[in-house]
Amino acid sequence: MSAPRWLSPSEQRAWRTHLALHKLLMHRLDRELQEHALSLNDYEILVNLSESPDRRMRMSDLADATIQSRSRLSHQISRMEAKGLVTREDCRDDRRGTFAVLTDDGWATIQRVAPFHVASVREHFVDRLTDDQLDALETAFGPIVDHLKKLR
Amino acid sequence: MSAPRWLSPSEQRAWRTHLALHKLLMHRLDRELQEHALSLNDYEILVNLSESPDRRMRMSDLADATIQSRSRLSHQISRMEAKGLVTREDCRDDRRGTFAVLTDDGWATIQRVAPFHVASVREHFVDRLTDDQLDALETAFGPIVDHLKKLR
Repeated sequence: MSAPRWLSPSEQRAWRTHLALHKLLMHRLDRELQEHALSLNDYEILVNLSESPDRRMRMSDLADATIQSRSRLSHQISRMEAKGLVTREDCRDDRRGTFAVLTDDGWATIQRVAPFHVASVREHFVDRLTDDQLDALETAFGPIVDHLKKLR
Repeated sequence: MSAPRWLSPSEQRAWRTHLALHKLLMHRLDRELQEHALSLNDYEILVNLSESPDRRMRMSDLADATIQSRSRLSHQISRMEAKGLVTREDCRDDRRGTFAVLTDDGWATIQRVAPFHVASVREHFVDRLTDDQLDALETAFGPIVDHLKKLR
């Protein structure tokens, strides 16, 4: 390996600020969701299912969409089944496996909690950035997202 | 609660891009660290301890610095103790509790792995942004970090 190219002070500041922001923000959003008996992981699954046709997704697609391993997702779905938010369904016509399906209770839950969650996202992130900053964020991060998706 | 102020399409894009970037990036950095038998959590603890006087930190300070609960940190430190990277030490003069201390092996590990990790951070993030973008990131996110820290 050639000599390490350590981060410059300004690169280091930007990198650490980025890390700290994300960690603090996820912690805060998770905590505010807990007032509604959901975790941030629960919420993300509910959003994905609620936006899918028939409110259902193949487990493998849901794992991809939420960027986690099949085994971690499986534990997560078990916890949400216990809460009555989702069910698993095998598809007879399709050997590619199991679906996660939003229950009526899961649908009611996301409808009820979404206004509070969007208020949290605004209060702690979106409303603290100008439109130009939000556009710049997408311009800067969009190509990195594309790059990282190709590596998965 | 008043009528929800849903995110506009451009706000939604920026927010989701931000979430996807961070998740994909952490996944990638964690995976590249695993080639060196470390997780991203391990690495963060090693960095914090290696930058502290006498390579040691009070557990409560380390929990604050890494933005996690005392109980989660305690499990994390137990795993790292088992790997020989850190030890716990009680401080006789100080009732405020236990320290986490970097071992010689932990110090050697961070020295050995840091060049690889910084190369990952450059390849998948820092070198994909211009200096102006990095500065803009710090300008945008710094005040949000300050806001969120006050809420903890």
